[in-house]
Amino acid sequence: MTDKATRHLLDIDSLDSDTVQSLLNRAGALAAGSAPSHLDMTVANLFFEPSTRTRVSFELAAQRLGMRVINIELDRSSSTKGESLTDTAATLAAMGVDCIVLRHPETGRCHKLASEVPAGLSLLNAGDGRGHHPSQALLDAATIAALGMSWSALDLSIVGDIRHSRVARSGLQLFRRLGIGRLRAAGPPDMMPDDMDLAGVEVCTTLDEALEDANAVMMLRIQRERMDKTGWPDSKHYHQEWGLTEARLASAAPGCRVLHPGPINRGVEIAADVADGPRSLILKQVRMGVFMRMAILEWLAGRHQAN
Amino acid sequence: MTDKATRHLLDIDSLDSDTVQSLLNRAGALAAGSAPSHLDMTVANLFFEPSTRTRVSFELAAQRLGMRVINIELDRSSSTKGESLTDTAATLAAMGVDCIVLRHPETGRCHKLASEVPAGLSLLNAGDGRGHHPSQALLDAATIAALGMSWSALDLSIVGDIRHSRVARSGLQLFRRLGIGRLRAAGPPDMMPDDMDLAGVEVCTTLDEALEDANAVMMLRIQRERMDKTGWPDSKHYHQEWGLTEARLASAAPGCRVLHPGPINRGVEIAADVADGPRSLILKQVRMGVFMRMAILEWLAGRHQAN
Amino acid sequence: MTDKATRHLLDIDSLDSDTVQSLLNRAGALAAGSAPSHLDMTVANLFFEPSTRTRVSFELAAQRLGMRVINIELDRSSSTKGESLTDTAATLAAMGVDCIVLRHPETGRCHKLASEVPAGLSLLNAGDGRGHHPSQALLDAATIAALGMSWSALDLSIVGDIRHSRVARSGLQLFRRLGIGRLRAAGPPDMMPDDMDLAGVEVCTTLDEALEDANAVMMLRIQRERMDKTGWPDSKHYHQEWGLTEARLASAAPGCRVLHPGPINRGVEIAADVADGPRSLILKQVRMGVFMRMAILEWLAGRHQAN
Repeated sequence: MTDKATRHLLDIDSLDSDTVQSLLNRAGALAAGSAPSHLDMTVANLFFEPSTRTRVSFELAAQRLGMRVINIELDRSSSTKGESLTDTAATLAAMGVDCIVLRHPETGRCHKLASEVPAGLSLLNAGDGRGHHPSQALLDAATIAALGMSWSALDLSIVGDIRHSRVARSGLQLFRRLGIGRLRAAGPPDMMPDDMDLAGVEVCTTLDEALEDANAVMMLRIQRERMDKTGWPDSKHYHQEWGLTEARLASAAPGCRVLHPGPINRGVEIAADVADGPRSLILKQVRMGVFMRMAILEWLAGRHQAN
Repeated sequence: MTDKATRHLLDIDSLDSDTVQSLLNRAGALAAGSAPSHLDMTVANLFFEPSTRTRVSFELAAQRLGMRVINIELDRSSSTKGESLTDTAATLAAMGVDCIVLRHPETGRCHKLASEVPAGLSLLNAGDGRGHHPSQALLDAATIAALGMSWSALDLSIVGDIRHSRVARSGLQLFRRLGIGRLRAAGPPDMMPDDMDLAGVEVCTTLDEALEDANAVMMLRIQRERMDKTGWPDSKHYHQEWGLTEARLASAAPGCRVLHPGPINRGVEIAADVADGPRSLILKQVRMGVFMRMAILEWLAGRHQAN
Repeated sequence: MTDKATRHLLDIDSLDSDTVQSLLNRAGALAAGSAPSHLDMTVANLFFEPSTRTRVSFELAAQRLGMRVINIELDRSSSTKGESLTDTAATLAAMGVDCIVLRHPETGRCHKLASEVPAGLSLLNAGDGRGHHPSQALLDAATIAALGMSWSALDLSIVGDIRHSRVARSGLQLFRRLGIGRLRAAGPPDMMPDDMDLAGVEVCTTLDEALEDANAVMMLRIQRERMDKTGWPDSKHYHQEWGLTEARLASAAPGCRVLHPGPINRGVEIAADVADGPRSLILKQVRMGVFMRMAILEWLAGRHQAN
């Protein structure tokens, strides 16, 4: 399609810093009212896990850029006929699809696919197993950036099932890249990672330890399905130990902000009054999500690149 | 979004009469070829019950207004992850959705949601349990209005499972409001309501009684599922007692018209030759449905309001 | 809608030869960059069998023509409420749908529907049971035509489960119509047809016999579901007897091209290296599929007709 290499968004670490900054700037500008590009292109949302929230966010982003959108969900995909994902991607490219937004339960599947797809087809990793979810990390950072806080002043704690969380993995990579002031990760022992790079991250073993003086805290969604399997007591006990409440936030910095990638489990990892309260950035994250996905789609299309 | 209150369409009774008249006029004008508005807005069809017919009608209406449309159906919704409808609605609003068309199995769910959603997000009740289905009533009235009949000359009977029918409830409210000449409701004892306002409605206990001299009859869809449960004999017996046939229509007024909200059960509540015959307004209702939904979406968006 | 009869695409034999030629020419022109028509019309993809591949091809074709597209798939259709397909089609027509693309498991269902739908509603048979799949045959022919080969020079073998294949049936009809030089059909005895017109077709009983001197071979997809039922050994044995490999292609003409309607079963009816190799036209077929479907939709709409 172009003489430049086809762009993909697979994870945070493979983005150069100019691109990261450019995406943050562009999402912020779009959120502030800048006119979006018009892209005469086609994007396919190819979801092997259900996620209305993420699918709709990408669909709205693409629509606002004037893109044609095709939705393909697992239970009705040709995968039921045994076709491989590689063949599905090559088929979509042959049909004129310019970008695939892929959600897949298998860790690393999007990276693997990137080595197999024809030139000209961009991949956007919308979550792969326990792997990466770079658009979530970028929208989280853009949400914080919109508050006007400098990265060096940010003291963020990520709390919950770090081990299984692609949101945490991508977030840790991004916030370290941005030069965050202080970064903590906390969760019950079974939910702490054994294969994640935690250099520069302070690991905490209690919620109170993680909250002390923090000016931002990101609560991760607890997968109820997983909870049943691992023998973790139950939602109620989780909430007692690890649920974010107004009372526990007393030890955080004044004005500490609360993030959550959604969908939230009220009364499990986060109390309803915190989620709905003035500290909460949750709906701002959702709103910024559409603008960040627009910025990413523009960048994949070769618009608004760094420099 | 505006300084006026956000508009919702929850039920007929909460519409003022000028708005009712304005919607009927506008749908009629669109059906007659008036140019639709162009709405740079987004509508989400959020369906917790499957209904291809209603979903497609709203989708086509929105497309003809130039709106962006997102379809979300139950089995793939984030409800499988336990998120509440309230959170889903707030999330869609944050993503830039301007209007939610909601179909929900729980009676009153749309009204409840209206008290919870953020300003600027319009709700359109596309059927809630045994509650309301206002767009159906409005399209039925617009279909009759297009025949040029005055409301005072209309002698309408609604026949079938009145008790469980949101179509009947909304229809009864609307036709009384419009000053209908005579309004009857009929059905087997188990299907007559015990909690519906029937002031001004004549209750009939046989089909013949309901048909006598009527110049319009609306047959309600029998839910086969429900029939099995309630011990009602079977479709054949229902048809013998309550099915509309050409023979039974002999006692109605000459030229009596037949309505049905669809989808029809041929040979159960209505004989095939009646459904397909010259008295039938069924496909005219379907056609007017798209125009009425356009009129409603325009009204929710603040266009073509009453004065 | 017009004074001309409503057009349908039900099967190859009911197309006149000028139309066939016009469709091939138009698809080729679109593939070469001709500007598509803009059709202010609505198409509904009505699929009673899942087929992401075919649905997406039609959806992209319609989008590129500026058409509004509605997707309706079986498990969420009103068919669950017992409405007949005939009523569904009449309902869609009343809603303003101009064309239905129908995929149905019942052989002959699309032809039957064509005798029932109102004037002005076009039907496009996207596969009916063991019946027809005319758009596939047309895109196959257009793919071959784009190679610049004359029909009289074409020596094509169709290999596999001919008996159950609507792709084979439509292909056999089309290639004979076009005056193909030599046409062979081959497959295991249980998979050869007993009710298909094979006049002018050489029936072969081994793959080697079918491949000898052929300059094009079309491998049919093996339905694994069916294989289990019929007592056919298994995929491995099928591949040994009937799978296309580079080694077996040695007896074909130099430069013999390979077609497959997709999705492919790698290692069953076709070896991976053949599917991905330079002989393969598979992705060219996929690409041409979108252009052929655009040409067909234009023709159904009365554009670019034969003279």
